Amino acid sequence: MAGNSFGQLFRLTTFGESHGKALGGVIDGCPAGITLDLEQIQSELDRRKPGQSAIVTQRKEPDTVEFYSGIFEGKTTGTPIGFAIHNTNQKSKDYSHIKDSYRPSHADYVYDKKYGFRDYRGGGRSSARETASRVVAGAIAKQLLNGIKINAYVSQVGEMTLEKDYKTLNLSKIDSNPVRCPDTEMAKKMEEYIKSIKKEGDTIGGIVSCVIQNVPIGLGEPVFDKLHATLGAAMLSINAVKGFEYGSGFEGVKMKGSQHNDAFNSDGTTATNRSGGVQGGISNGMDIYFNVAFKPVATVLQAYETINKEGEKVTTQGKGRHDPCVVPRAVPIVEAMAALVLADYTLLARSNKI
Amino acid sequence: MAGNSFGQLFRLTTFGESHGKALGGVIDGCPAGITLDLEQIQSELDRRKPGQSAIVTQRKEPDTVEFYSGIFEGKTTGTPIGFAIHNTNQKSKDYSHIKDSYRPSHADYVYDKKYGFRDYRGGGRSSARETASRVVAGAIAKQLLNGIKINAYVSQVGEMTLEKDYKTLNLSKIDSNPVRCPDTEMAKKMEEYIKSIKKEGDTIGGIVSCVIQNVPIGLGEPVFDKLHATLGAAMLSINAVKGFEYGSGFEGVKMKGSQHNDAFNSDGTTATNRSGGVQGGISNGMDIYFNVAFKPVATVLQAYETINKEGEKVTTQGKGRHDPCVVPRAVPIVEAMAALVLADYTLLARSNKI
Amino acid sequence: MAGNSFGQLFRLTTFGESHGKALGGVIDGCPAGITLDLEQIQSELDRRKPGQSAIVTQRKEPDTVEFYSGIFEGKTTGTPIGFAIHNTNQKSKDYSHIKDSYRPSHADYVYDKKYGFRDYRGGGRSSARETASRVVAGAIAKQLLNGIKINAYVSQVGEMTLEKDYKTLNLSKIDSNPVRCPDTEMAKKMEEYIKSIKKEGDTIGGIVSCVIQNVPIGLGEPVFDKLHATLGAAMLSINAVKGFEYGSGFEGVKMKGSQHNDAFNSDGTTATNRSGGVQGGISNGMDIYFNVAFKPVATVLQAYETINKEGEKVTTQGKGRHDPCVVPRAVPIVEAMAALVLADYTLLARSNKI
Amino acid sequence: MAGNSFGQLFRLTTFGESHGKALGGVIDGCPAGITLDLEQIQSELDRRKPGQSAIVTQRKEPDTVEFYSGIFEGKTTGTPIGFAIHNTNQKSKDYSHIKDSYRPSHADYVYDKKYGFRDYRGGGRSSARETASRVVAGAIAKQLLNGIKINAYVSQVGEMTLEKDYKTLNLSKIDSNPVRCPDTEMAKKMEEYIKSIKKEGDTIGGIVSCVIQNVPIGLGEPVFDKLHATLGAAMLSINAVKGFEYGSGFEGVKMKGSQHNDAFNSDGTTATNRSGGVQGGISNGMDIYFNVAFKPVATVLQAYETINKEGEKVTTQGKGRHDPCVVPRAVPIVEAMAALVLADYTLLARSNKI
Repeated sequence: MAGNSFGQLFRLTTFGESHGKALGGVIDGCPAGITLDLEQIQSELDRRKPGQSAIVTQRKEPDTVEFYSGIFEGKTTGTPIGFAIHNTNQKSKDYSHIKDSYRPSHADYVYDKKYGFRDYRGGGRSSARETASRVVAGAIAKQLLNGIKINAYVSQVGEMTLEKDYKTLNLSKIDSNPVRCPDTEMAKKMEEYIKSIKKEGDTIGGIVSCVIQNVPIGLGEPVFDKLHATLGAAMLSINAVKGFEYGSGFEGVKMKGSQHNDAFNSDGTTATNRSGGVQGGISNGMDIYFNVAFKPVATVLQAYETINKEGEKVTTQGKGRHDPCVVPRAVPIVEAMAALVLADYTLLARSNKI
Repeated sequence: MAGNSFGQLFRLTTFGESHGKALGGVIDGCPAGITLDLEQIQSELDRRKPGQSAIVTQRKEPDTVEFYSGIFEGKTTGTPIGFAIHNTNQKSKDYSHIKDSYRPSHADYVYDKKYGFRDYRGGGRSSARETASRVVAGAIAKQLLNGIKINAYVSQVGEMTLEKDYKTLNLSKIDSNPVRCPDTEMAKKMEEYIKSIKKEGDTIGGIVSCVIQNVPIGLGEPVFDKLHATLGAAMLSINAVKGFEYGSGFEGVKMKGSQHNDAFNSDGTTATNRSGGVQGGISNGMDIYFNVAFKPVATVLQAYETINKEGEKVTTQGKGRHDPCVVPRAVPIVEAMAALVLADYTLLARSNKI
Repeated sequence: MAGNSFGQLFRLTTFGESHGKALGGVIDGCPAGITLDLEQIQSELDRRKPGQSAIVTQRKEPDTVEFYSGIFEGKTTGTPIGFAIHNTNQKSKDYSHIKDSYRPSHADYVYDKKYGFRDYRGGGRSSARETASRVVAGAIAKQLLNGIKINAYVSQVGEMTLEKDYKTLNLSKIDSNPVRCPDTEMAKKMEEYIKSIKKEGDTIGGIVSCVIQNVPIGLGEPVFDKLHATLGAAMLSINAVKGFEYGSGFEGVKMKGSQHNDAFNSDGTTATNRSGGVQGGISNGMDIYFNVAFKPVATVLQAYETINKEGEKVTTQGKGRHDPCVVPRAVPIVEAMAALVLADYTLLARSNKI
Repeated sequence: MAGNSFGQLFRLTTFGESHGKALGGVIDGCPAGITLDLEQIQSELDRRKPGQSAIVTQRKEPDTVEFYSGIFEGKTTGTPIGFAIHNTNQKSKDYSHIKDSYRPSHADYVYDKKYGFRDYRGGGRSSARETASRVVAGAIAKQLLNGIKINAYVSQVGEMTLEKDYKTLNLSKIDSNPVRCPDTEMAKKMEEYIKSIKKEGDTIGGIVSCVIQNVPIGLGEPVFDKLHATLGAAMLSINAVKGFEYGSGFEGVKMKGSQHNDAFNSDGTTATNRSGGVQGGISNGMDIYFNVAFKPVATVLQAYETINKEGEKVTTQGKGRHDPCVVPRAVPIVEAMAALVLADYTLLARSNKI
């Protein structure tokens, strides 16, 4: 209830600040008897971790997950899965310069106002480091979702846009380059662009697209818990996200109904898929696809003016090791949140029929 | 839990199908002692009801709300507020032609698959008629949110876009025209356009924008229940919505961090507001503004081919009284959902401090 | 969340005060496709209603339930079931004498303190009249629980105790007498006793026992949502309940482990059933049985001294039509709450396995 | 949702099995700015831990809690408090004898049936070892509940009953003896009795009573979330509990209304307190008191016959280190659960008023 749990039946609760002893979480509601591939979970974490390539933050955090419960002889037991990722490279000193001032477009100011004070070390709870716990839980959810394929990828960096339908992309190429863009040529350009942005000490926004395939018909709980509404909430809960659209999205508003409607094939599939795999809040068996907009990272390695707690203007120099562009590392986070939503709705759907 | 409740502390549960006896709901958690203006509630309902103008559906439904509980001597009692809107003009016969076939891009098919059968009268529960209950609850939430101003308006119909910052608009003009566009000139053009679309028996999409002013600092419950994440879920739960963006939104991804960051003024406000009034999931006291994308209504008054339950191709003629463009009537619904979110987070915020 | 909902997946939300326009509720999460026997639902309501016999309150309330949604062509649709029971015999004037004073051992005082004022007509929301909505929902839950038998009965009135194991009782006799005690002889004595209490203008407490048979193994969600913990909460939420025990209950504390343990039969059943059908919070397939203690009704038809809002001592004469003993009418309420718990846990159990 | 969380706004989620790597939990919703006395928390854990005296299990577990998050510079931050208690003395070998058979009146059988298999090491999740996490969270809740005093104590062991009103007891003596009975003389007798039971290799049940003082008026959320209903659920969720009663409890059913009613004093307090501090589900400012019945521990150190997975009869010898009577160690658990309920309802009550 206090905001740190996600899901109704497959439910993740996370804890941890960027510079505390450990981050982690509890997954409650994972069915018993699932054989877990723990290496696969760690490998998802590795996709998110800092220091993977030249275009992401150079912080060195091993991000090793340790499981405390809920797994016995390699299988889930139906009891809660507790886990932790110990922080080993906090470098609190990097943040001493922001202890007394509020970084623009960060959560520093609102945390201070809401809670009466704040953990100023690296953003504390507001740091995207928290998403490591989501990736762990999402990796378990993926293993529950036998047969469903979830692929996210970078489709835009700044103004550079992948002008292609996901069906024409080779999704197996996503992890073949540090940008996580399935078009190798575009990936190269994006990488160069991000490097140039980094050199300026600046940052740039981007879009992560996601495709979910082999989804069974019937996931979604209208009227409020429509499948796409929860997918939207899941994505909007990720740090730096400013927008979500699925299927025809914002472009679809320009169309007429006669153009936009998806005609049925005899088998219940549709000839087109402007609906984006969800109709009336319920999956219709077609591919689900959506876009998630990420703003540019707020921490720029430049001098900037801001205010301190007393409301006085101060000039600060951004420093530390930060991502010039968040979308490459956001790809596994988007996938994880999508997996959590689908796992939860899979369990919810089981209770709907007599 | 089964999808028909919204909110944690200020909680609306709705019931009702488009052609059942009544729609309605229960509001649980409304604090005691609020003097309710019942006429104001009915007037919000009237903004949503069919038959208001030439550009909306010509169904005649009085949509009169009846309160059953939770109000005593003009004030809320702190106990649940039960209410109903009786259906008086169901015309079930209008829908007999769709009893055995699935309308494209409607929820007919997925409801049938999910629940094993469906209430085919006017879409049953999947009809946007359900949102009448939300408008009732939202009107009560608005009365709780003393001082906070919520204004939604139509900013786009098809390709016709209002090219203006909301600050330059006269929001008091929203209800002065049937489109609910605050720019009278643009409203006229949109109205003509919708009429021409209607004449074709077709429909068109659009965008509703919303501005929330005078929001206190501190609403929002990170990490999952970020204020904008719940606003997004709220909007995406409205029928026909395909996308949500707030603040700089999808356009913001093209910017550099040094351009996008909102510099602080001495009083904690910001010089710009690309953040859209929410930082790290918590309101920062600046205006909250967001866009909601609505697809074109799926029911077109044209002949179309589809399938029946047996998967056979059938040709059907769309008929009945439907909206050629949903956004004018969606305006009060967007406001209602925004009010529900803010009322809930207002109550949640009270419990955060010692 | 604000206290007027019960259940997680099969979820009842109730509204209504004793003297408002209507009571009612919404059942969310009832699976689709259940053929409902509406007469059976009304007949459960009739078991609870006032005026059935000489030993219950003589108020005349028809208590007819009207369904608004969620049922189509005789079957549940999977969408929320909204219903109302209109109040027709409020006689608010009966309560004018308590408008300004607090009745001892009633909720008048705490409602006033908690909410700032109160609906003084017949106790408002704190009246047991609210349980009519529970009986409606419970009757639907019973129809979902195909094969499971739930039988509650009166086992104690004042000091008069039914000294028998439920297995020796003829549970089909429960409704054969106004006390709802399956032992006809004891029922007669209890009836006479209640009449004599009534003649004194006094009231008396009692115990309702309940047996649930044919429960499948595996219902219950440890560690917090143990089946018996939720049964306990359900019973304790009924007006006037002061205690709950299941299986060996309070007597069991006197036993040694070697005496108390239930030895297994080869088929997994147990030779004895001191566990009361629940082990570690999970049903084990044996009969579930429990006792619910009801205090004497607080409204006595005698003169009594109390205080008014100003804290001044006032003398009041209890009047109106009240139950001298609540347990006969509590029997269907206990059954209803038991059915709601079992329906909810049945749905929860479906999501536990892969 | 899956049973391992407790509370709505002050919410504890626990994880961990008796013989896994660690137990622990996450407290979400603890307000920011509370100065935590960590030694006090550890000292509550020490009251629960094994090996304290001759009458409890001789297992040696240090039970040291480690906090991972949510605390900064000695104060709560308003973010989730993650913690773990590492298991150091698992001795899995002690349980090899029960791997293939079901212990009578344990959860072995139902876990196997519900989840498809079980963690047989010491009961896994069904072990009362899980309650260590509750004690940690309860100790934090106690620190939030400034001024409210919660005292539990042993009032019955087997047939030995403390025949005294709690007001005549010296509650400061509770921890002065290993039984945790405030009457030193009775404590001595109970201790001797438990020792004799232990010598027999047997176990015995008991009752823990609890008194909560200085409770503000207005805690409780009718109609379902009545304060005593949630207290009851909280207590019934503790391992081995078979019953709960508050105020006049089961004895109260024998009384007449005219005897049972609590007359008001001028200041709103009552002359008697048969209500037990809760009226209509809402605290009335009087002391809350209740009794919790614990069955005898199921593990007896004697030979017994049971069945294995194949349903064959097998004879087993109970062994290991177990409590002959659970109530002395249950005292801090009862207090912890009471504190969790009160903390949650304190936060809930804040949102009730405008």
